[in-house]
Amino acid sequence: MYSKDVTAQNPWFIQESDLSAATTAAHETQFALANGYRSLRGESPFCPAQYPGAFYAGLYDKSEAAVTELVVCPNPLPFRVYVDYDEVLVGKKGASQYTRVLDMAQGVVSSWLTYQAETGSRLTMKSDRYVSRANRHRWAERWEFRADNFSRRIIIKIAIDGTVLNNAQHPLDAVKHLEVTDRGRLDVGAVSGIFLHARTRDSGVPIHEGEVLLCPDGEDSLKLLLCRPLAERVEAVYELHLEQGKPLVLYRLGFGQAVLGKANTEIGLKEGLSDFISSGYEAELSAHRTVLAQFWEDADIQISGDDRAQRALRFNLFHLSACANPLDNRVSIGAKGLHGEGYKGHVFWDTETFMLPFFIFTQPKTARSLLSYRYNTLQGARENARQGGHKGARFPWESADTGVEVTPPWGVDYAGHLVRIWTGEQEVHINADITYAVLKYLQMSGDRLFLLEQGLQILLETAQFWASFAQWNPERQRYEIRNVIGPDEFHEHVHNNTYTNYLAAWALQKTRDLVHQLETEDPDSLKNILDRARVTRTEVESWMEVAEKLYIPMDKERGLFEQFEGYFKLQDIPITEWDKNGMPLWPKNLDLRRLNETQLIKQPDVVMLFAMIGEEFSQEVKIKNYEYYEKRTMHKSSLSPSIYAMVGLGLGKHDHAYEYFIKAAETDIVDNQGNTSHGLHAANAGGTWQSAVFGFGGLSIDRDGTVRIEPWLPPHWNKLRYSFYWRSVRLIVEVQQELCKVFSDTPLNIRSGDREYRASQEGVEIPRKI
Amino acid sequence: MYSKDVTAQNPWFIQESDLSAATTAAHETQFALANGYRSLRGESPFCPAQYPGAFYAGLYDKSEAAVTELVVCPNPLPFRVYVDYDEVLVGKKGASQYTRVLDMAQGVVSSWLTYQAETGSRLTMKSDRYVSRANRHRWAERWEFRADNFSRRIIIKIAIDGTVLNNAQHPLDAVKHLEVTDRGRLDVGAVSGIFLHARTRDSGVPIHEGEVLLCPDGEDSLKLLLCRPLAERVEAVYELHLEQGKPLVLYRLGFGQAVLGKANTEIGLKEGLSDFISSGYEAELSAHRTVLAQFWEDADIQISGDDRAQRALRFNLFHLSACANPLDNRVSIGAKGLHGEGYKGHVFWDTETFMLPFFIFTQPKTARSLLSYRYNTLQGARENARQGGHKGARFPWESADTGVEVTPPWGVDYAGHLVRIWTGEQEVHINADITYAVLKYLQMSGDRLFLLEQGLQILLETAQFWASFAQWNPERQRYEIRNVIGPDEFHEHVHNNTYTNYLAAWALQKTRDLVHQLETEDPDSLKNILDRARVTRTEVESWMEVAEKLYIPMDKERGLFEQFEGYFKLQDIPITEWDKNGMPLWPKNLDLRRLNETQLIKQPDVVMLFAMIGEEFSQEVKIKNYEYYEKRTMHKSSLSPSIYAMVGLGLGKHDHAYEYFIKAAETDIVDNQGNTSHGLHAANAGGTWQSAVFGFGGLSIDRDGTVRIEPWLPPHWNKLRYSFYWRSVRLIVEVQQELCKVFSDTPLNIRSGDREYRASQEGVEIPRKI
Repeated sequence: MYSKDVTAQNPWFIQESDLSAATTAAHETQFALANGYRSLRGESPFCPAQYPGAFYAGLYDKSEAAVTELVVCPNPLPFRVYVDYDEVLVGKKGASQYTRVLDMAQGVVSSWLTYQAETGSRLTMKSDRYVSRANRHRWAERWEFRADNFSRRIIIKIAIDGTVLNNAQHPLDAVKHLEVTDRGRLDVGAVSGIFLHARTRDSGVPIHEGEVLLCPDGEDSLKLLLCRPLAERVEAVYELHLEQGKPLVLYRLGFGQAVLGKANTEIGLKEGLSDFISSGYEAELSAHRTVLAQFWEDADIQISGDDRAQRALRFNLFHLSACANPLDNRVSIGAKGLHGEGYKGHVFWDTETFMLPFFIFTQPKTARSLLSYRYNTLQGARENARQGGHKGARFPWESADTGVEVTPPWGVDYAGHLVRIWTGEQEVHINADITYAVLKYLQMSGDRLFLLEQGLQILLETAQFWASFAQWNPERQRYEIRNVIGPDEFHEHVHNNTYTNYLAAWALQKTRDLVHQLETEDPDSLKNILDRARVTRTEVESWMEVAEKLYIPMDKERGLFEQFEGYFKLQDIPITEWDKNGMPLWPKNLDLRRLNETQLIKQPDVVMLFAMIGEEFSQEVKIKNYEYYEKRTMHKSSLSPSIYAMVGLGLGKHDHAYEYFIKAAETDIVDNQGNTSHGLHAANAGGTWQSAVFGFGGLSIDRDGTVRIEPWLPPHWNKLRYSFYWRSVRLIVEVQQELCKVFSDTPLNIRSGDREYRASQEGVEIPRKI
Repeated sequence: MYSKDVTAQNPWFIQESDLSAATTAAHETQFALANGYRSLRGESPFCPAQYPGAFYAGLYDKSEAAVTELVVCPNPLPFRVYVDYDEVLVGKKGASQYTRVLDMAQGVVSSWLTYQAETGSRLTMKSDRYVSRANRHRWAERWEFRADNFSRRIIIKIAIDGTVLNNAQHPLDAVKHLEVTDRGRLDVGAVSGIFLHARTRDSGVPIHEGEVLLCPDGEDSLKLLLCRPLAERVEAVYELHLEQGKPLVLYRLGFGQAVLGKANTEIGLKEGLSDFISSGYEAELSAHRTVLAQFWEDADIQISGDDRAQRALRFNLFHLSACANPLDNRVSIGAKGLHGEGYKGHVFWDTETFMLPFFIFTQPKTARSLLSYRYNTLQGARENARQGGHKGARFPWESADTGVEVTPPWGVDYAGHLVRIWTGEQEVHINADITYAVLKYLQMSGDRLFLLEQGLQILLETAQFWASFAQWNPERQRYEIRNVIGPDEFHEHVHNNTYTNYLAAWALQKTRDLVHQLETEDPDSLKNILDRARVTRTEVESWMEVAEKLYIPMDKERGLFEQFEGYFKLQDIPITEWDKNGMPLWPKNLDLRRLNETQLIKQPDVVMLFAMIGEEFSQEVKIKNYEYYEKRTMHKSSLSPSIYAMVGLGLGKHDHAYEYFIKAAETDIVDNQGNTSHGLHAANAGGTWQSAVFGFGGLSIDRDGTVRIEPWLPPHWNKLRYSFYWRSVRLIVEVQQELCKVFSDTPLNIRSGDREYRASQEGVEIPRKI
């Protein structure tokens, strides 16, 4: 315990040696632990939380908030230690040797501190914490105390805090979503602890939190002194008897649940904790590790020769994986993961476009569950379409529990003026993004059951929406999609956004193709699905007219897609300066309120198509467009650099790829956007994975469905190793500077350059042209 | 507003330029404002309170606490400013030019801060706060805002916080005394604000807090955005419209009451605030200043040539005066004033022995009210006597609202072991201390009504107690008082403590003398008083036997009073080292657990007699004893140095007097005891006044009742000026190095050396031998 056998060099570890007021909130995101069901932001055991955050996936409430939001739930983490009544806190004079380490391999956060009280008594402490990925209601801490120079009791206080608010730091947006219905002492057999019951004020969801303290040394060592129920909080105070030099261990076992949906999913707190006490801390930790080991087996990417990139990449995979729960298809992943309150826990295109590829390629079951969330919110999506006067299903730009649009229509600026937010009405591309993810999942998994049960219906209903949303322009004899916002949010109210129109037409086409295919293979099922979707067979064919005549603006002479109609006529202001990280600086004398009058863009828009369905375009077209748009991209979204890295690598553009990749990979580990405190940049985490695998790893799927590998490594990388699933076949790709080797647990033809190779368990070598 | 026209040189000002986690709580004591009825600890307007503390004098509650304690009441002070939604806090990167000044002449705390938000918007703020000494329910703030480089709204949040606990930082002793009964928005005519009602859980005292915000520029400038009732807290959020460069003023008017005793003392919050709104901030400030100006007129002590001493002295007078309310004789002053939770707000001998002389000599009405508190708690004191099997009234060592002993009989050490606290049983000298204060008050004020209504009865009932408490020792043929603790708490369970026995005998004698006097002057009243006290005339005479035969241990050969029987036989360990401030260090190899086996003492015990009734002793006796005991005093009480300074000066001992005086005067201004955070060292504040007036000022009253002036000034002082009341005659003493001048608004004979002088309005010169 007392020798911190960790080093900053180990790329499985994230280490913190200091906590200041300026960094605490961001570190709470970095050290958050979650299992897709619940999350606990990374409150240091030796410092009260700055932004306390206990969340349950899918638990939303509105109350006085502008729109429904993910609820900050009662915080079960407060734990205070008192040496001779002197409160142990990092930052106080007596505190030394503070270290906190997230071990991503184990899914455990360990913290160390030595504290010398004013009386001179010196205590050394270690705390380990996990949130179980095996039994998702469970979380636990193991504490170890050593009295260095005294033999006496110390005092410990635990609490469950229901006074929490959402947006607590914001003067206007702070909202109370909880009503604490009961709290007090909890006895589970001979073991004591505390409980707190609450309920969301609008949505009425019961939340139960309980925790107990156990000391293997028995009752003589740990004694409950008092339980203090306060209005919305409960505290229990214990004494722990220490003998000088003799380490004492304490376990804190926690159990929590939010009873979403039907009440019969409720497990009694006592029952839940009793079972946990029976199995114990170590057994649960072992089960948790087993799940996590399987995750790393499936999803780890190894980079030799670059610990910085290796650690940052794993950081993203660890936290992104913590947001998903394959067993609950009523929930998806918000833009900030389960790691903070940012974007109100709402689900955006981020999930399907940036995060899902990671899950599709490494954890197909989880991917399926995440897509089912969209299926389960179809009713809301239908309502959105109907409200806009359209047919079919229109998925919301911001989604919560029902699929009904929850983008706030109005924001408030600093001056208090209402600012119209148009994304809810105009960022319709979300519908094509979901189609893309469904099709990508179907392609990679070959999951026919999902196709029949949910996938095709999603495609049909969104296709129906597109067909009714596109407008026929009789003058130009073309279909148009007007008044939209593409991925680049610098430009609103644009017409015929290439990204949107291209993907919409592609979606209509792909959906029709699937219908044709199924008509041959399983006409009964098709009929059934069409009925469920309220789509006629004739209607499907009629979509082809729309798909074919949907206008894609293009400068054919230059071979350039026009981001939207009229974009090329906008002011073309060159970017001439970059910061030390290679990120563009705003051109001088630019009026930031009139960005919409320039060709400067926030993030890839046309180029985004190449990232998603690159197989549809020739290299020549891709290169021309990439070169044009990259010069005009300000990278003002965390989603931007990873996409440019990935697409660029596929086009032989290696110059900035590593810088883009590192920028993306380190977004939250170094807080380079300055808002890690609000939560994980979850889309960026997925984008980082895509840069590594699709970019450096060179993985793509040709139009004929063949796996293609075209890797490239930065010069200082010795090896890149990644794996993925192709229709239940597991492939491992090992790329070195001189050669690439592909292993497959079932023999499979793959392609690289213009050659095909037969991958097998023994591996096949693909020569590399460096 | 924007030029801080204050300097650290002005001895009316206490200034703070920084707030760190380590100093915040102590500064909250230093900047506390109070009016004897209520107090508000000095929460900085730009930093949340570390130890929030709103108190009402006399408002005690027990609930789960070990003994009844002064209740930490709902905090009405939280005020947050947000610039472009960025919270203004001292210590954040954008904060600069923070200054806080307590202007002791005005009784106003002013705070300045400039804050630059992350958006670049820069705001300069000034806040003034007072707690009115005129209308004691009222407190107020005046805010001034200037937007330096923007024209836009800012956001303001006010709150009343009922989540407060007593001893909130302590794991075991934290206690919830309040139940919040209601809270919400308060509209007073067109003016909006918030209110919170609470009630103490055991004692059932209703507490009402309300506050409103007013902007003289009208409704366009200040707008209530929302009122947020939380479980035990209420918040209101306003927007304030600023125009660049144009200062905007805001008033916050607060009204609070704790309804002690009969409910018909209750004033409606709305009524109270409505009246305050009608009169306004400035009128109330003016009334407050008038009261304070009168206080300084009566009580100020001017020191020329030593700003450090001047400021520190005023600091003590300002804060001590803030603790007393001449209009409420149900309350007294706790050991920590109204400034913190220390000593649970209990009243000790500190009040009568250390603080009362200040009030008796400068504010006789307040002194009378404080003594009436003892009269009003006689019933409890009688119960204490009866419980011990004694007659009369035995005032408690620690007193709260009823006079019943509230010293906790047990404490708990770090190890959790119960530790017996004997002071409640054994520090009986409190009864003689009260007698001393009553007699001193009567002597100085000549307040016959008080004598008849309350004073004599207090004396009679405590005398009755002494007579029954003293034991006859037939073997030695003497009365003894056994098993006590004197002022020096290093020694417990001692017999015949000189201080106790001497004062008890003196009290008996003085009481009998008063009875004799009254028998001549007003026999009817005497009879009535004796009846009320349940004391017979014969009984009074019988006390003389006790007074005369009460044993005072003394080494007659050396002319030394023995602190208690056997003291001289204890180990005599010399003090050989002093710290840089001249304070003694513990002798080496001393076992601190066996202090009781040594002659080392905590604070003056025998010497305390000279401070109180010095006229009873010859100079020779005083010098001998002073010299003996000073060498053995560790000064481990804040009450010690000021007494040695004062007594020493009367004996011509000038060597350490200034150091002792400064040490005492600066106790809380520099936090030299390290616990200013717990509250004011109120007794020390009184002791500081005594050192200045009785010590340097040389004021005493001869046995024949003549005012005596024997001043001495430290060499670097140019002048000392103080004033006091002698039976409604106001005297002013101006001491310079070469001469001393005494003014009296009514001609009066005074004495200095062996000469008499006639003081008058024109002043009389007293030559000084330097």
